[in-house]
Amino acid sequence: MIRLIKGNKQGRDDYLKLLNSRRTEVNSDVVKSVTKILNEIERRGDSALIEYTNKFDSKELNSQNILVTEDEIKDAYNKVDKKFIDSIKQAKKNIEKFHDKQKHNSFVLADEPGKIMGQRYIPLKRVGVYVPGGTAAYPSSVLMNITPAKIAGVDEIIMVTPVRENLDINPSVLVAADIAGADKIYKIGGAQAVAALAYGTETIPKVDKIVGPGNIYVATSKKLVYGEVDIDMIAGPSEILVIADETANPKFVAADLMSQAEHDKLASSALITTSFDIAEKVNKQIEIQIKDLDRKEIIEESLKNNGIIILVDNIKEAFEIGNEIAPEHLELCIKDPFSYLPCVRNAGSVFLGSYSPEPLGDYFAGPNHVLPTSGTARFYSPLSVDDFVKKSSYIYYSKEELQKVADNIMTIAEDEGLTAHRNSIYVRKN
Amino acid sequence: MIRLIKGNKQGRDDYLKLLNSRRTEVNSDVVKSVTKILNEIERRGDSALIEYTNKFDSKELNSQNILVTEDEIKDAYNKVDKKFIDSIKQAKKNIEKFHDKQKHNSFVLADEPGKIMGQRYIPLKRVGVYVPGGTAAYPSSVLMNITPAKIAGVDEIIMVTPVRENLDINPSVLVAADIAGADKIYKIGGAQAVAALAYGTETIPKVDKIVGPGNIYVATSKKLVYGEVDIDMIAGPSEILVIADETANPKFVAADLMSQAEHDKLASSALITTSFDIAEKVNKQIEIQIKDLDRKEIIEESLKNNGIIILVDNIKEAFEIGNEIAPEHLELCIKDPFSYLPCVRNAGSVFLGSYSPEPLGDYFAGPNHVLPTSGTARFYSPLSVDDFVKKSSYIYYSKEELQKVADNIMTIAEDEGLTAHRNSIYVRKN
Repeated sequence: MIRLIKGNKQGRDDYLKLLNSRRTEVNSDVVKSVTKILNEIERRGDSALIEYTNKFDSKELNSQNILVTEDEIKDAYNKVDKKFIDSIKQAKKNIEKFHDKQKHNSFVLADEPGKIMGQRYIPLKRVGVYVPGGTAAYPSSVLMNITPAKIAGVDEIIMVTPVRENLDINPSVLVAADIAGADKIYKIGGAQAVAALAYGTETIPKVDKIVGPGNIYVATSKKLVYGEVDIDMIAGPSEILVIADETANPKFVAADLMSQAEHDKLASSALITTSFDIAEKVNKQIEIQIKDLDRKEIIEESLKNNGIIILVDNIKEAFEIGNEIAPEHLELCIKDPFSYLPCVRNAGSVFLGSYSPEPLGDYFAGPNHVLPTSGTARFYSPLSVDDFVKKSSYIYYSKEELQKVADNIMTIAEDEGLTAHRNSIYVRKN
Repeated sequence: MIRLIKGNKQGRDDYLKLLNSRRTEVNSDVVKSVTKILNEIERRGDSALIEYTNKFDSKELNSQNILVTEDEIKDAYNKVDKKFIDSIKQAKKNIEKFHDKQKHNSFVLADEPGKIMGQRYIPLKRVGVYVPGGTAAYPSSVLMNITPAKIAGVDEIIMVTPVRENLDINPSVLVAADIAGADKIYKIGGAQAVAALAYGTETIPKVDKIVGPGNIYVATSKKLVYGEVDIDMIAGPSEILVIADETANPKFVAADLMSQAEHDKLASSALITTSFDIAEKVNKQIEIQIKDLDRKEIIEESLKNNGIIILVDNIKEAFEIGNEIAPEHLELCIKDPFSYLPCVRNAGSVFLGSYSPEPLGDYFAGPNHVLPTSGTARFYSPLSVDDFVKKSSYIYYSKEELQKVADNIMTIAEDEGLTAHRNSIYVRKN
């Protein structure tokens, strides 16, 4: 059962405070141990990488068997359902189709004689994709992180993932990685894998950017190598906000709130509704449906701590609060949801109508499921092709055109007191 | 005189090491004092802001006179040259024209019945622009930071800049801010200004992103508020790389290397050339031209410590080294420079031919002068309209279309062990 509050100022502020409090603080012990690992890998390369991998993951790994072989991938295909393979292939097709629309063209501005300027899009050369081990090894994340990099034209995609004692990687993850098009997969994880990607070792090539989720050691090491390489957003606890009016189906809304809650005790599931009746029915449906769910305990704790139902007077108010929350996922279970899309200013991804539940987007539809969390949809975007390209501009002026504007440029340079800048134009004056 | 090395492996590696060593390390004393300021502003708002401003800048500031008035702006116009105003207006027009080409359209994917997906571009609501005080108050930076935000459609642009004892702001900066279209200008600076923008106070509105250069206190406070708000890149020391063949004009090349060097003792000016003759002549020209430059000492020290001429056997090698350096500015003083543009993989901005010197781009041509430094052009881009918009995706499936793919989605959810995700689809099945 989720507690219900009124959508007044106090209630809203309290909830926003609660949401913000879930942010992971920097942990100085973690920083200390991660820093040591980073330094060791930077200094000693492979030998340190193997040492740490033996310490944390499997004792049988060495630089000879660290790379996943073609046989291991073939083997993985034999271990998973044909139906799973087909579903992943279909999902990949959908993700490709959507991300293909995100590509931008380089442009040139050449409408005045003697002046040419432009902007080129250039794919990153090499990208590292981190995939967690254990129960958080999600094939859907593999697709969502690798596909935009492929579409962007990245030369080489290096995936890393820790193994279990038996040197095994989740076969679903291997199949997804192969379908998505990972160029190389290394059996390493943790801060040592992030360090290897950031600095390069004898075996692991240095990359330009590291993406993908991970535990606090992975997240902290990504933060610490940022600048040496680029990184994606550091994901916070996951969130859903459902905005529902009296036309919503409480059975569906309850299911969707719980699907978010099962991720993590810190996950947040919120419902804003104009209907007290819907609020009550959603809580009843949660009671009914939760019984059959594997992660019952996590869901209960998440809903109790971070779940909320906010009762509002009208839909306008719902969107006001929604934009303050800036949720990762926003479901609009309301009449005529499309007409309200312009009211959404801050949200990672919006799910319109009763038959577009969040898992449709998590797994299948096409838009990316790597989304801004913790209210950062105010300024961050979903992972996209843009994250795997960079821009570079260029300028050409002819001798004649430079003469025409030489005085303007020298005037500004003088104002700024930069006489060597002025001189660079002056020596070119007739 | 700049020292000359051979473009062999050892020489290249040594120079890259030197470039990297210029990176500003995190300074724990600065972190400590900045953290205190951030906490105080977050907790006490205006009263702490005024206290710190009185301590560091002017004793006469209070929350009544902290906002620059229209009279002060009018006054600034009277204090600067008409020629300067005209030059800034022309520069702004050029910057607008170039950045206008960077705008992207929202898209919708609706080619299959019952499925609609799309991506919307939404401008950030409010942006803070930091402008340093003192000698580093550059009107050109004001234009380069504000114009892309305007073109992106940001609702409100809040500029902050510290005042001198007499409550004065550099009139050139005020004029540039007015021409660029700053909505509000506050007379605050340092970590306290960054904190006010990040958290908001009674007077200063909270923003979504903070851009603009600053000293180590400003840079450190930007890093620390990152996540609460977005920030731009933290700029490192500035760099130029000139690639020159025997057709280059040594007088021009010398002038351009010095124009970079005058910024800062840590600035780096590099020349890669196929011609020993050009190398020698450039050094001679430096000796001649430096005499008349105001910042002679800075230039000398910068060239001595971080300047280099790398002699290579052929142009191909020049581009190989150039891409390793990944310079902020790259000048191609070679025959037929356009044909070599595709060889440039890593560079912030490229200047083609002998009449397109870096100051043309710094002040006037149109492409942004806020560029990735310290080799980060490997993965970062020039400041652009993209930095002031965010994306948000949306998904709609009809009841019928969801039925068709329900099994696929449930298959993947099951594989990941997320039964509440599966349930969200299951409750919607007929």
